[in-house]
Amino acid sequence: RRESFWRRLSPPQLFVGSFLLLILLGTLGLKTLPGLYTGAPLSWLDALFTATSAVCVTGLIVVDTATYFTVWGQAFILLLIQLGGLGIITFTTVLIVALGRRLSLRQQALAASAVEAAPHVDYRQLARDVVRFTFLIEAAGALLLYLGFLPELGWRGAFWPAVFHAISAFCNAGFSTFSDSLVGFRTNPVVLPVIMVLIVVGGLGFLTLEELYLWRRSIRERRRFRLSLHSRLVLTTTVLLLGVGWVFFVFFEWKATLAALPLPAKLLNGLFMSVTARTAGFNTIDYGAATEQTNFLTILLMFVGGSPGSMAGGIKTTTIALLVLLAISRLRGQEVPSCWSRSVPHEVVQRAVGLFVVAVAVLMLGSFVLTATEIEHGVTAPGSFLKYLFEAYSAFGTVGLSMGVTPSLSTTGRWIIILLMFIGRVGPLTFAAALTIRRHRTRQFRYAYEDVVVG
Amino acid sequence: RRESFWRRLSPPQLFVGSFLLLILLGTLGLKTLPGLYTGAPLSWLDALFTATSAVCVTGLIVVDTATYFTVWGQAFILLLIQLGGLGIITFTTVLIVALGRRLSLRQQALAASAVEAAPHVDYRQLARDVVRFTFLIEAAGALLLYLGFLPELGWRGAFWPAVFHAISAFCNAGFSTFSDSLVGFRTNPVVLPVIMVLIVVGGLGFLTLEELYLWRRSIRERRRFRLSLHSRLVLTTTVLLLGVGWVFFVFFEWKATLAALPLPAKLLNGLFMSVTARTAGFNTIDYGAATEQTNFLTILLMFVGGSPGSMAGGIKTTTIALLVLLAISRLRGQEVPSCWSRSVPHEVVQRAVGLFVVAVAVLMLGSFVLTATEIEHGVTAPGSFLKYLFEAYSAFGTVGLSMGVTPSLSTTGRWIIILLMFIGRVGPLTFAAALTIRRHRTRQFRYAYEDVVVG
Ligand SMILES: [K+]
Ligand SMILES: [K+]
Repeated sequence: RRESFWRRLSPPQLFVGSFLLLILLGTLGLKTLPGLYTGAPLSWLDALFTATSAVCVTGLIVVDTATYFTVWGQAFILLLIQLGGLGIITFTTVLIVALGRRLSLRQQALAASAVEAAPHVDYRQLARDVVRFTFLIEAAGALLLYLGFLPELGWRGAFWPAVFHAISAFCNAGFSTFSDSLVGFRTNPVVLPVIMVLIVVGGLGFLTLEELYLWRRSIRERRRFRLSLHSRLVLTTTVLLLGVGWVFFVFFEWKATLAALPLPAKLLNGLFMSVTARTAGFNTIDYGAATEQTNFLTILLMFVGGSPGSMAGGIKTTTIALLVLLAISRLRGQEVPSCWSRSVPHEVVQRAVGLFVVAVAVLMLGSFVLTATEIEHGVTAPGSFLKYLFEAYSAFGTVGLSMGVTPSLSTTGRWIIILLMFIGRVGPLTFAAALTIRRHRTRQFRYAYEDVVVG
Repeated sequence: RRESFWRRLSPPQLFVGSFLLLILLGTLGLKTLPGLYTGAPLSWLDALFTATSAVCVTGLIVVDTATYFTVWGQAFILLLIQLGGLGIITFTTVLIVALGRRLSLRQQALAASAVEAAPHVDYRQLARDVVRFTFLIEAAGALLLYLGFLPELGWRGAFWPAVFHAISAFCNAGFSTFSDSLVGFRTNPVVLPVIMVLIVVGGLGFLTLEELYLWRRSIRERRRFRLSLHSRLVLTTTVLLLGVGWVFFVFFEWKATLAALPLPAKLLNGLFMSVTARTAGFNTIDYGAATEQTNFLTILLMFVGGSPGSMAGGIKTTTIALLVLLAISRLRGQEVPSCWSRSVPHEVVQRAVGLFVVAVAVLMLGSFVLTATEIEHGVTAPGSFLKYLFEAYSAFGTVGLSMGVTPSLSTTGRWIIILLMFIGRVGPLTFAAALTIRRHRTRQFRYAYEDVVVG
């Protein structure tokens, strides 16, 4: 019996395949649709780069979105961003619930009780909820951004940037219709906060937001409601990382890129740097001119990224939280990591550990190849290394920040960044699972065990 | 019933404690013994730094071993190196055998058969073997080095450097009696090869060497002998890493630090760079003047380090080999990693994964603190970042190479490097185990499980 091509694919292969298809369609569109840009024709490689960056909501650019593309071109990119973003958030949310992994959470969230039986989940309804919620937030964001842009851009000029940035911010895409991203609005008391809220909300994940909503309602209605362990870890880690980043960035850049700003703007921009590093990718300072401490801290935050089931990339807040819990439990001599009176299952911890190892390995290899191909041999150009390390982490975390080397990447360099963006977006474990050869009922055998000494 | 202090300690605590004691005695000796150095008095912190670097066979120095210390001072440092090196190699070898982990290997090695019953192991004899073997190799090395140094230093001048470098090289310590390490001997066809052999042999581990010896004898006697999985992984990984490093280093430095050398010396020094990065720490080029690619590759090799049960540091060759095997098995859809018709037990793989995660976490944190404390705020000094990243990896891998920032480290920086050297030497997992609070027969309970989404 022959199965159809799509039916033979495993869920990871379907997910990776659909992303690949969207990128290829985007590339084709950028090359063939008329009137998307003016000036020199876009090469196939750059079209692929731009489409990958848009679909993977990364924001690294080899051509300037603001000047190279027409409004139609920008709209096409925005469409790719919206489809990529929606694809990620619906797919992961549905998958999380479908895998039964989050049944406990959904149960608690929907019934506010601890019934053991698996509830019926309407996946179409869930997907519709996610899409509706996305559009609602983006519309509200666009409206507020319109008010923020109004004084400077006028009632006609503020419209397109407001729509574009609302979607780009909520999808954590980092594309901008301004050549210098948001540097021109670094003292704007409306634009920056609105963008920050959109980024953070887009990076928390639908299920956590749903729980937060139910939690608020339960307080109003004086009912008992317990936030799931997942949401607690997401929220705590997010707040901690944002806070730590804020303090350090203000400290590191006080006399550098923030020197010219008044105190409130210093604090606002420091917070923005902390928010944007967690996979948004807008910038209000020039990272090429920032201190090396700032850039290294940004690399670390980009590595962590946002939360599962959201628009954000990186290895995710829960992964880091679980690794910390694991370390604490081991130091205490406990067998199982636990927090807030709940234990974390063994397979979950193993998945977190595995993700961390694979991510570090991919990044070590990616940075090394990039360093080898991009930096000119035999010439010591101090500081280049950090730029390419930054670029690799930014691509893998689908962040989109850059110290300015993206447009000058070699052909090999562009391919590596494209690959890193793609692997980072679909997740290295999902990517690996999609590559896995499915064994068709062959009897698994294994060799005799033999010990190896470690460490 | 009160137990004595020492008896209450767990084996990891005993191991970590004895190293700590040796370092403290070394520090005290450097401060109080007369005639060890000339010139400005050594501060307590610098004495601690030097003692830690010597006992942990690292080789990072805040004062120049060649000019600051008298021959007596150098001899005292050499004593610390020898004690530290012997401590590591005997303790780990005995522990490996005692834990029963390597019984299969010892069995094969000693009986050349596959008897299932655990053989009787004479630990005192084993320890004596290790010590005897060490002195034998060092004596042979010193003799050969004496011949190598003879033409340039004369029959009296060559003696002390030969002894010092033989011990320092075999212990992978990296201390040198020359201010510029081995840069002055970069074209010497005897000194460099001898040092390289000493380093590699010192970094393979006693049990692998013992097996190699038995393997050679079995070939001569035409008996069957199977190298253990452990030794195969150690040897394969070592050869691969040395080869890959060799090719890349020659390529990266061809027009840079190796430019002035003739072809054979280019090749020899490229190989030396590959060998020394694996925790030896001697240098024949100025790493501060090398290309950034070279320095990043050196960082990656320093991270891997040598093999278990040897003088070398790093996360060890077997750890990397197991992670690669794990990745391959997962991509093939196999449950258990295997190689050469042998499967690797689950706990061993888990230990490798855990070690990798902890090492990366320690290094990320250590590099960040170092970057934050050492690089001047508000000033963009391109290239500083790489220097401190290099320094952190060098300390943790107990390598001892430096891009030249060690003597100018701040007080905080010195403490961080001391800590990294110590944790790297005893191993982060052993260090953590030593910190673990032992639970005295309290009933372990655990909370209800709750799921968390990862990735
Ligand atoms: K982004
Ligand atoms: K060393």
